Amino acid sequence: MTAGVAIVGASGYTGAELFRLLANHPKIKIVGAYGMKNTGRDVSEIHPHLHGIVDLKIEEIDCEKICKTADLVFTATPHGVAMKLVPELLKGNSKVIDLSADYRFDEVKTFERYYTKHESPHLKGVYGLPELYREKIKISNLVANPGCFPTAVILSLAPLVKEGLIDLDHIILDAKTGTSGAGATLTESTHHPVAGANVAAYAATTHRHTPEINQELSKLAGREVRVHFTPHLLPLIRGILSTAHVFLKKSMEKTELLKIYREFYGGEPFVRVRKELPQINYVVGSNYCDIGLEPEAEGGRVVVVAVIDNLVKGASGQAVQNMNLMLGFDETEGLRGPALRP
Amino acid sequence: MTAGVAIVGASGYTGAELFRLLANHPKIKIVGAYGMKNTGRDVSEIHPHLHGIVDLKIEEIDCEKICKTADLVFTATPHGVAMKLVPELLKGNSKVIDLSADYRFDEVKTFERYYTKHESPHLKGVYGLPELYREKIKISNLVANPGCFPTAVILSLAPLVKEGLIDLDHIILDAKTGTSGAGATLTESTHHPVAGANVAAYAATTHRHTPEINQELSKLAGREVRVHFTPHLLPLIRGILSTAHVFLKKSMEKTELLKIYREFYGGEPFVRVRKELPQINYVVGSNYCDIGLEPEAEGGRVVVVAVIDNLVKGASGQAVQNMNLMLGFDETEGLRGPALRP
Amino acid sequence: MTAGVAIVGASGYTGAELFRLLANHPKIKIVGAYGMKNTGRDVSEIHPHLHGIVDLKIEEIDCEKICKTADLVFTATPHGVAMKLVPELLKGNSKVIDLSADYRFDEVKTFERYYTKHESPHLKGVYGLPELYREKIKISNLVANPGCFPTAVILSLAPLVKEGLIDLDHIILDAKTGTSGAGATLTESTHHPVAGANVAAYAATTHRHTPEINQELSKLAGREVRVHFTPHLLPLIRGILSTAHVFLKKSMEKTELLKIYREFYGGEPFVRVRKELPQINYVVGSNYCDIGLEPEAEGGRVVVVAVIDNLVKGASGQAVQNMNLMLGFDETEGLRGPALRP
Amino acid sequence: MTAGVAIVGASGYTGAELFRLLANHPKIKIVGAYGMKNTGRDVSEIHPHLHGIVDLKIEEIDCEKICKTADLVFTATPHGVAMKLVPELLKGNSKVIDLSADYRFDEVKTFERYYTKHESPHLKGVYGLPELYREKIKISNLVANPGCFPTAVILSLAPLVKEGLIDLDHIILDAKTGTSGAGATLTESTHHPVAGANVAAYAATTHRHTPEINQELSKLAGREVRVHFTPHLLPLIRGILSTAHVFLKKSMEKTELLKIYREFYGGEPFVRVRKELPQINYVVGSNYCDIGLEPEAEGGRVVVVAVIDNLVKGASGQAVQNMNLMLGFDETEGLRGPALRP
Repeated sequence: MTAGVAIVGASGYTGAELFRLLANHPKIKIVGAYGMKNTGRDVSEIHPHLHGIVDLKIEEIDCEKICKTADLVFTATPHGVAMKLVPELLKGNSKVIDLSADYRFDEVKTFERYYTKHESPHLKGVYGLPELYREKIKISNLVANPGCFPTAVILSLAPLVKEGLIDLDHIILDAKTGTSGAGATLTESTHHPVAGANVAAYAATTHRHTPEINQELSKLAGREVRVHFTPHLLPLIRGILSTAHVFLKKSMEKTELLKIYREFYGGEPFVRVRKELPQINYVVGSNYCDIGLEPEAEGGRVVVVAVIDNLVKGASGQAVQNMNLMLGFDETEGLRGPALRP
Repeated sequence: MTAGVAIVGASGYTGAELFRLLANHPKIKIVGAYGMKNTGRDVSEIHPHLHGIVDLKIEEIDCEKICKTADLVFTATPHGVAMKLVPELLKGNSKVIDLSADYRFDEVKTFERYYTKHESPHLKGVYGLPELYREKIKISNLVANPGCFPTAVILSLAPLVKEGLIDLDHIILDAKTGTSGAGATLTESTHHPVAGANVAAYAATTHRHTPEINQELSKLAGREVRVHFTPHLLPLIRGILSTAHVFLKKSMEKTELLKIYREFYGGEPFVRVRKELPQINYVVGSNYCDIGLEPEAEGGRVVVVAVIDNLVKGASGQAVQNMNLMLGFDETEGLRGPALRP
Repeated sequence: MTAGVAIVGASGYTGAELFRLLANHPKIKIVGAYGMKNTGRDVSEIHPHLHGIVDLKIEEIDCEKICKTADLVFTATPHGVAMKLVPELLKGNSKVIDLSADYRFDEVKTFERYYTKHESPHLKGVYGLPELYREKIKISNLVANPGCFPTAVILSLAPLVKEGLIDLDHIILDAKTGTSGAGATLTESTHHPVAGANVAAYAATTHRHTPEINQELSKLAGREVRVHFTPHLLPLIRGILSTAHVFLKKSMEKTELLKIYREFYGGEPFVRVRKELPQINYVVGSNYCDIGLEPEAEGGRVVVVAVIDNLVKGASGQAVQNMNLMLGFDETEGLRGPALRP
Repeated sequence: MTAGVAIVGASGYTGAELFRLLANHPKIKIVGAYGMKNTGRDVSEIHPHLHGIVDLKIEEIDCEKICKTADLVFTATPHGVAMKLVPELLKGNSKVIDLSADYRFDEVKTFERYYTKHESPHLKGVYGLPELYREKIKISNLVANPGCFPTAVILSLAPLVKEGLIDLDHIILDAKTGTSGAGATLTESTHHPVAGANVAAYAATTHRHTPEINQELSKLAGREVRVHFTPHLLPLIRGILSTAHVFLKKSMEKTELLKIYREFYGGEPFVRVRKELPQINYVVGSNYCDIGLEPEAEGGRVVVVAVIDNLVKGASGQAVQNMNLMLGFDETEGLRGPALRP
């Protein structure tokens, strides 16, 4: 038995990636492509790698039609759009996975401080990180797919924070991302002559993924956590590498630390705890989050490195993982491919 | 029912790519990994993206053991190695797909002029380009998987050559490849500080893929063809773009030309004839060969552009396509994924 | 004694490169920066590498002021702009070097076919390729700086064409360029997620550098020449590599061919004839054009490869070379730096 | 009046960069090229961008000859080589600038812990960071040119450490470098198919630039400092971006902080304190170190970003700056060129 899904936001990169992942998903039929841009055009004209694979035109967003045809909808839209559509979609009995920030926050005021005024603040999504919220996701109709940086960062620190092993006042997160994270919209900082051989820190103390990380680590810690997060734009297209510099409350060996991670993630299909520090090309093109760590001989620091493909585990792959859970499929269906390396 | 396959040459890039493509192939079990390097080490240590996916150690090559355990063997070895193994493998009733040049040539002397002395010259392989030799491949026990450049070039020109439409004395082939085509062996020209922002023509008039292209185009033309082939190394990892500059015997419109291509490749699962000139990122990570063309207003030139992923359609993907044919599976099994774009 | 120069078009990449090259030119003082964009802003805000080096604001274009303050003006403006300014600038006794196409064509109708209606068709510039027109440049008040592709291509073929050695009906020019050639304007094809690991042919049979190449090669040949030119966009920022595939009328050895090139370019300060085929990183950041060649054993083809930095010898460096000639300075002043390699 | 200099270690990247920078230095004549590799070959064969610019062969190292012909010698050799040559070079009255680590440490035992046994431990070099040790450098015969990461890191933190403004127990240094920093020797981690679209942390808690940073910051602080340093390898060739995450003892505004930096570096020719966080392409190809900072609203963190070209200010450019000081030339001679951007 197959389910029908619709993709709203068909022109963007996370939309394209949903098509790529779902095109050959054995239990899914993509029944509609919607968007505010490029309506009337073929999906495969906007995303030429999908030529001969996706045979749909982009239609204007029509919630009624979506609800009639789709069991589940992905809203891969800019922040502030889904919050206008989701009330109607839920009313029409569609399940929704929102890839934007609209439903990620427990406190509406946090969302509103970093994004915009919320138009459906009464609706609550489940934070779509299966490693933390699998059971809730299974029974939810509205899943808020996590941000790309938060996915890498939270997975990299959850075991240490949960176990109360680190100084919560000195969590330094130095993250590196490829340019696809900035999306399909043309900007000077992602113009190839500017970005092609460059590195740049941006939103160095004010990035809006910070409150999302704080929210989830605080829940794991059982007290308020404020991380120190700085992202950097790198000259590669896909991939995030997050370097967490944290300080142990008491000295621990690498083997002890790895044991804690292995127990925390035992059985997780998409988290690989590794002996060595993972590199971006271990995961690009796949839904894996690879994690490794290295404690410093003196001074208490542990370096925890996590890598993901920002468009897969950091966005559309995780959304498909959530979809599998919500529709009762095998959680790994359509997501088992290894990274493309070299 | 599944078949068992062995991979000889497990440390190289085409070996790694076979693991990637076969790991989730529903009809295949990889029963052995063999090689001359890294014996005793885990495949996933050499190819860290396969951690948790391929659980095999690299063993010393043992043809007897291979024949006992595998229905089909891929020899993804340097040129000159397979020719020593294949006689024994065939005797042991294994089917063989050789990714090296050892069995690509109809004339042993051509092989010997460009490569080395042949040690099993009596054995003949079927040239493994399914678009030209599908029926022969299905019933063969020894398939010679084509070179990466020849795959792109031959597919890009087969319709024009077959139909006798172009001047065979002025076929200029200007090809561009990523660095993965040079393999896993360290060389100065693929050292990142040298290659990372560079372009270089190499073997500009003497590349050993030239005789392979000549052989196949000659058969299509029904007379001897000598192409003018020059490859270039580019600062990207995967992908080949071949630009053929050819001259029509008589003026033709683009639509006529496209019609000829569409008829020639009608029904082919992995050749996409396109309206526009295709780009490398239309196909990287996939088994597609995309082809487009543009006739010049005056002077008779047609520019034909073909793109492939050199490690997929240009090597391991095509090998899996051949395997599917040889084992009686759906030809596209395990190969339906679209390109990774962006 | 120093001369004052003004730069019109201060926001673009060729404008930035003029500032870079002239900032430390011992005989030059930059007296003004002009443009239609970013007026009122610091040059070093637009081009942050010039911070502390260029202390000028971008002013609205004012020909009268320019003529009063500058001995020579660079118009580094989009095609169609200089033709409106140059009449007034010349009247005001400024010398002009135009980096656009506005004055490159002997026949106005050629310009108008490929660009736009000309507004000062009576004015004729000297084509600013010093290797061909040095003496005329020295005494000219209006120099039309060549296009980037034409610079590489013409220099790569001038000796063979001049000497009448090749078949003029089969000149195939397959050129490769970095993304800076497309300028500072944001486009989808130069968006990093699209361009960062891609190759694309563009304007494959219709590029407007073709008539410029034809004009100059025709004059060298003494008859009309129509080349077959196709450019490709590569994932690097700076550099052009032009691969010319040409056919000798009669067989010649490599040494003979190199001798012809060495004689043709003997004494040229910025053309290096090389034994091997040059690569892009031999010249990036410098004003050199490196040329190498390789004749094919059979079939008469010669592969001639030329490399330049598209923003230096292909634009601003050549403009400074022309300036040195027009102002009576040492031709190499300010241009002697080698390439940045690695 | 010109001085003669010799370059020992002519095959490596810092050697090549010395040739590039000195080729047009108005006060310098390069009188010899020496090395242990490639002896007998032309410098311009190893470094093809220097064709026609450097006309020297690489000779076997001969200290006596060097002392006779050169006023100053650069030892751009692997760690452990200079310590064998320098005693003889100094005895022969040559001034020496060593680009390796051999003379960077005040304590020989620190050197020996991280590198190898020292063979001339009695000789002391001046640490060649002109911003800290200019007057000592001027009168020294042996200057130890700083490491690339230490140059960026020390310059980025010197004002805060000197003024006693930050918590010295939580200095986190997350550095990013291009692949040229790894040198000309082929390694798997700098093989283009591996490095071309990758990010990797390495020596995450044990890098040997750590003790060098600790030594210099300790002297500035007047007490022992132990930084937490982790470098990352990025897919670009040149450039280092160092992100320092430090914690203020008491809250300060950005303007106050910038004022401290501007006072500390007032008059420095190659340090640019910037309003915004600098990016790598502000400095690549130049001798500048650009520094910017951003204090976090809550929690006391300041992000300080410094960028350099690892081969210029991080190695050979700084060596030329030191040479200018040691020989009594203008400190900026030969080093005034802006970065190559785009």
